[in-house]
Amino acid sequence: MEFNNVTIIGGGTLGSQIGFMSAFHNKNVTIWGRSDQSIDRTKARIDRWETAVRIDLNATDEQIKNAEKHLQYTTDLKDALAGADLVIEALPENVATKDEFYDQFKELADSNTILVTNTSTFLPSQFAEATGRPDKFLAYHFANEIWKFNTAEIMPQSKTDSALPAALKQYSQEIGMIPVMINQEQPGYILNSLLVPFLNNALILWSKGIASPEDIDNTWTIGTGAPSGPFRIMDTVGMKTIYEITHNSSDPDLQVAAEKVKTMIDAGKIGRESGEGFYKYN
Amino acid sequence: MEFNNVTIIGGGTLGSQIGFMSAFHNKNVTIWGRSDQSIDRTKARIDRWETAVRIDLNATDEQIKNAEKHLQYTTDLKDALAGADLVIEALPENVATKDEFYDQFKELADSNTILVTNTSTFLPSQFAEATGRPDKFLAYHFANEIWKFNTAEIMPQSKTDSALPAALKQYSQEIGMIPVMINQEQPGYILNSLLVPFLNNALILWSKGIASPEDIDNTWTIGTGAPSGPFRIMDTVGMKTIYEITHNSSDPDLQVAAEKVKTMIDAGKIGRESGEGFYKYN
Repeated sequence: MEFNNVTIIGGGTLGSQIGFMSAFHNKNVTIWGRSDQSIDRTKARIDRWETAVRIDLNATDEQIKNAEKHLQYTTDLKDALAGADLVIEALPENVATKDEFYDQFKELADSNTILVTNTSTFLPSQFAEATGRPDKFLAYHFANEIWKFNTAEIMPQSKTDSALPAALKQYSQEIGMIPVMINQEQPGYILNSLLVPFLNNALILWSKGIASPEDIDNTWTIGTGAPSGPFRIMDTVGMKTIYEITHNSSDPDLQVAAEKVKTMIDAGKIGRESGEGFYKYN
Repeated sequence: MEFNNVTIIGGGTLGSQIGFMSAFHNKNVTIWGRSDQSIDRTKARIDRWETAVRIDLNATDEQIKNAEKHLQYTTDLKDALAGADLVIEALPENVATKDEFYDQFKELADSNTILVTNTSTFLPSQFAEATGRPDKFLAYHFANEIWKFNTAEIMPQSKTDSALPAALKQYSQEIGMIPVMINQEQPGYILNSLLVPFLNNALILWSKGIASPEDIDNTWTIGTGAPSGPFRIMDTVGMKTIYEITHNSSDPDLQVAAEKVKTMIDAGKIGRESGEGFYKYN
């Protein structure tokens, strides 16, 4: 199974990055957007990724031109799906939005087209039936700035054809990614399964007044050689996301910590992007 | 409060490193050992640390000589304690051994001598009364290869004089350490409070067959920029320690994982030092 004609549903941050890197590696890519305005925004994002890969990957003019040549845009879903080997759904994390697309996909897509979702918060089993082809459906998850943080997490659900993960593994390698094979459904995939509890534990140490963000980060970076400790990572992730993933916790210590994060957000300390979170930035 | 005359009780791996780095920074250090044989072993260790700091810190002959000039050894506990500003207990992690020392310390030490313990597994409150001076006692924890992994975790118990942590902070800086101030007793200090659950979560992902050690490590190193993922860290820590800290867990998933670690140990895969753990080493 080889994927050469690839359609991306949704040209947001991740959708546009996946489309761009696929085109960069000679795949014929069509990005579907809801409106001309959303296509314009996608094109502006692609401009930014072009600049980024010039810096981060030393990409040449020729490579950039080649990527552009392999990219098409459309607002017509039927056109977008026609002849696609692989469709990558990268819509917002909203069940209704995704279900609405899967309904149309079921009607419009070729019967042999493979469908994957880039969802970060849902499990693929939740949508498998809605796609109309659970055997040809799995989750395929990328991290922001995929040319640099180049893991591609490949996670089937129970009805996925057993040959499909290997086909996605090959595709990942073809577009410059390091495939991560996840053998069973795992909420949060691998990265968030490790990162979220790690950040939560650090947050509780701080919230309980056991040690300062700086001292906790120093301990981690010196002890493990990591470039950033948990509080610097949280400043990059942003306080709003940290609040989102903590405030409904059943752990009372984490609930208290979430309220302290809320106080920071209310004071405008929402992380690196606002110039202040646990640390100050210039 | 300034500490210039420092006595180390026990010249094992950490005791000899703390003594050596204190002497390296012009502190007058006495290392107490139980017997002439243990003093000999301590001196052999100090030779190794001298070689290591020549490599890791570019230490000069003059600096090494200066450190040696500041080091004394004795098997006489009364002599060791006489005139000490600061006594650092670095005995094996055995309650009876530590209690036996604290009993003698109570009799022999000057009344104004400060006492700290380098225990990694106990809380200082457990020994505070036994020392006879709970207000002058706290935990002071170093990581192996202290010249490189140079955090010094400073953790008081409820009866510690509130001025004492700051004095240890200053001492830490004087001997080239990054002090980590822990405001309340915390089992495992900071590093193990973060590292142990992190390693446990990774172990469970592997044990449940969700992903391979290599794929999990790739996800972590690419996603966070860390030099090592959890399985490479566990290979360095050693499987025996991993088994020790997991097999009594109340989490059934972790118990299953611990049994798989036991199988590895039984097969001789005890980590980096045996040439194989989760990875093979040459």
